[in-house]
Amino acid sequence: MKIAAYSYDEYVHLVKSFHGSLAPGLVIGGFIVDLALKNLPEGEFFDAICETSVCLPDAVQLLTPCTIGNGWLKVFDLGRFAVTLYEKEKGKGIRVYLDTEKLKSWPEFNAWYFKLKPKKEQDFELLMSQIKEAGPSVLSTQPVCVKPEHTVKRRMGPTAVCPSCGEAYPLRDGTPCLGCQGRAPYVE
Amino acid sequence: MKIAAYSYDEYVHLVKSFHGSLAPGLVIGGFIVDLALKNLPEGEFFDAICETSVCLPDAVQLLTPCTIGNGWLKVFDLGRFAVTLYEKEKGKGIRVYLDTEKLKSWPEFNAWYFKLKPKKEQDFELLMSQIKEAGPSVLSTQPVCVKPEHTVKRRMGPTAVCPSCGEAYPLRDGTPCLGCQGRAPYVE
Repeated sequence: MKIAAYSYDEYVHLVKSFHGSLAPGLVIGGFIVDLALKNLPEGEFFDAICETSVCLPDAVQLLTPCTIGNGWLKVFDLGRFAVTLYEKEKGKGIRVYLDTEKLKSWPEFNAWYFKLKPKKEQDFELLMSQIKEAGPSVLSTQPVCVKPEHTVKRRMGPTAVCPSCGEAYPLRDGTPCLGCQGRAPYVE
Repeated sequence: MKIAAYSYDEYVHLVKSFHGSLAPGLVIGGFIVDLALKNLPEGEFFDAICETSVCLPDAVQLLTPCTIGNGWLKVFDLGRFAVTLYEKEKGKGIRVYLDTEKLKSWPEFNAWYFKLKPKKEQDFELLMSQIKEAGPSVLSTQPVCVKPEHTVKRRMGPTAVCPSCGEAYPLRDGTPCLGCQGRAPYVE
């Protein structure tokens, strides 16, 4: 059993080191990214989309060259457990998602995913073994075409000094900067 | 010269492996995160905020336990080169930012940051040596208090099956899921 370039145990080690714990979602995420990598459309450069901010972005960041900081991974927080890898130029991509129909064969996995049991009644060992055993069998793939606005490279445009905070910011955001327009997450 | 737990060269190696290239912003980001870690307020658990999605989130993810997937790193795309580490309970934090006044002592660094020269006229070697030599001397710190809505743990609430796509999603998003409400980044 391989997850992208790694053995299962190597991947588990990576996840613990980067994500802090072996979250079940990261294991499923590993299978999702692996299946997407095996079904890439033609093309040279790929970007990634995660449809949830929970767990899944870390699987993408560990297993592909796409990260939040290099801009090749975008998160659209739609709350769906799905990853799309797509060719940067034309937007042709493969979407891999957790298939709720297929999940029904794995009761502990299904109960965890749909939160059917309180945490203290869950059997973590059984859950992890079902996730590992199920592997890609609970996933489905779907060809997609990513909207053109997500295929162009982000351009920052000119940089200015904000007259309010004195920090540099992209002038396209208006004046003052977005932080001084009230969007900063801090108490005044 | 150390960047968090790493030597400069170890950090450069990490950056190349994770981010794909030694982007100047990741080197500055290393100094920013390092300075924030050295000025943490009291407390046991810390979350992180990045005020730009460009480069900086990867420095946080490499040098702290905070990642996008585990929810401890949040990106507020204000276009400012700043990181805040804050205590999870009360929101008391330290913000570290690139100080444009201090940057004036480093002409190549300043010209790169404010995009004063076309890329082909930039001297990459000189830029990187100025960034490394400047180190934390171009940064400033600021105590902040993060708004209470960002200190609470995210709760997903009940999960439902979307009647439109058949996938699982958080019921709080309404019906159908956000993807089927037109928020998916794909061409129909």
